[in-house]
Amino acid sequence: MAALVNRRQLRIEWGQCDPAGIVFYPQYLMIFDACTGQLFARTGHSALAMREKFGIIGMPLVETGARFLLPCRFDDEVTVESEVAEWGRSSFTVRHRILKAGELAVEGFEKRVWASVDPTKPGSIKAQKIAAEIITALSSG
Amino acid sequence: MAALVNRRQLRIEWGQCDPAGIVFYPQYLMIFDACTGQLFARTGHSALAMREKFGIIGMPLVETGARFLLPCRFDDEVTVESEVAEWGRSSFTVRHRILKAGELAVEGFEKRVWASVDPTKPGSIKAQKIAAEIITALSSG
Amino acid sequence: MAALVNRRQLRIEWGQCDPAGIVFYPQYLMIFDACTGQLFARTGHSALAMREKFGIIGMPLVETGARFLLPCRFDDEVTVESEVAEWGRSSFTVRHRILKAGELAVEGFEKRVWASVDPTKPGSIKAQKIAAEIITALSSG
Amino acid sequence: MAALVNRRQLRIEWGQCDPAGIVFYPQYLMIFDACTGQLFARTGHSALAMREKFGIIGMPLVETGARFLLPCRFDDEVTVESEVAEWGRSSFTVRHRILKAGELAVEGFEKRVWASVDPTKPGSIKAQKIAAEIITALSSG
Repeated sequence: MAALVNRRQLRIEWGQCDPAGIVFYPQYLMIFDACTGQLFARTGHSALAMREKFGIIGMPLVETGARFLLPCRFDDEVTVESEVAEWGRSSFTVRHRILKAGELAVEGFEKRVWASVDPTKPGSIKAQKIAAEIITALSSG
Repeated sequence: MAALVNRRQLRIEWGQCDPAGIVFYPQYLMIFDACTGQLFARTGHSALAMREKFGIIGMPLVETGARFLLPCRFDDEVTVESEVAEWGRSSFTVRHRILKAGELAVEGFEKRVWASVDPTKPGSIKAQKIAAEIITALSSG
Repeated sequence: MAALVNRRQLRIEWGQCDPAGIVFYPQYLMIFDACTGQLFARTGHSALAMREKFGIIGMPLVETGARFLLPCRFDDEVTVESEVAEWGRSSFTVRHRILKAGELAVEGFEKRVWASVDPTKPGSIKAQKIAAEIITALSSG
Repeated sequence: MAALVNRRQLRIEWGQCDPAGIVFYPQYLMIFDACTGQLFARTGHSALAMREKFGIIGMPLVETGARFLLPCRFDDEVTVESEVAEWGRSSFTVRHRILKAGELAVEGFEKRVWASVDPTKPGSIKAQKIAAEIITALSSG
């Protein structure tokens, strides 16, 4: 099954840019985080509903990476394409591509864990098997 | 009694500045927030210890304001002076001044509430009488 | 003439919230800044086009203030209403109201200057008379 | 020659943390950026002086990555160790390790380019051979 791709149009804000006039790179990671949220909302569950329904506390990040190919500037319109590129048992990798006028400007990934509170260790989390329903909802065709 | 003034030296970071090359103004509010934290640490209680000892959940903001007199730029060294300018029964106002080479660059305030969880309304907070010990600790002379 | 009101729907992002689960207050100022940008785009000029056409370098902030009435949380949908509440000769005040389920959660203002480069002092800016066309475009009725 | 390691003590701020009570991960990238700045200041040149002396416009990022091993929370004291792990002709990789109570909490890298304005293409940058003096200054022993 192919992955469902979430597309989001964004306009680069003044406050996201640095004195070189280009997006300050940690801002791209904030965009990734928000776009993963929007991708998972495509399951039909809000972030809060998903937590309640599946007993998770969230999807903490274990690894991230990004390559910067073209600079984006204030007022640029960009498209962010996000999809789950790989499903593990309890972890998954979201791939993001930021396109500017059709050209790839930034590509990156987030590896996240489907996690619940660890009942045996206060303050700790425990990886859970990802709900099949979520995997299905984020696949297309 | 005069107020204890906390002084903090900061160097403006690249990521705090915008394409005009000056500090993006919400960053000043982040500086205020962090400097209020550092001022209250002068009581001898860490933020977490203070929460436990006095049964508060924090010091939520109810009002803020700032005037911008001189721009600060990447790599500028600034001094932030913070003090409680006014104590109410359950609220207080912290005044911040950001100085650049001895000149006032930004001045602002934060009005905050000394708050605990409201036991009668889940999810709500309730203003508390500020602990006398805190007021004394943040006064000098 | 009444002011043109720009309305923007936003969903509160995870990364805008603090450990108390509510929006970290400097984030509201970032929202104000972005919404002022969107309001001025209603003139039909992009931020860059406006700079070129009117010879300004931007609209630097001289004063800001905000009152926080209701907390906003992750995934809350809010509406931001922004309008120029007052036009001076070379400065103006934008008023912002953030509504959550129809109730006022945050209100604030930004006082900004219509500024060009000062040809007599390198690195300095100079307030300019605001273009009448802009005032007209941001008025309604 | 071994690399010079810059060590920086930081206390995690409230505004860097998310509703799960842990550092919001793009904040780590902001820490990396600031610590690279501090590492390069160990050459004895400020960021601005380095730009003037070597004719560069900065050190734009081409790739970044991070792994998150232990969560950091509000008020945690951490140490950030930063060093250039690899020098290419015109690019270099800075490695960062964030330690909490002596344990590795986050590790990451930034691959950056030593760049000047491209005189043949307005608005573009061009990779330059890194100044030998900088490489020497950031090596130890």
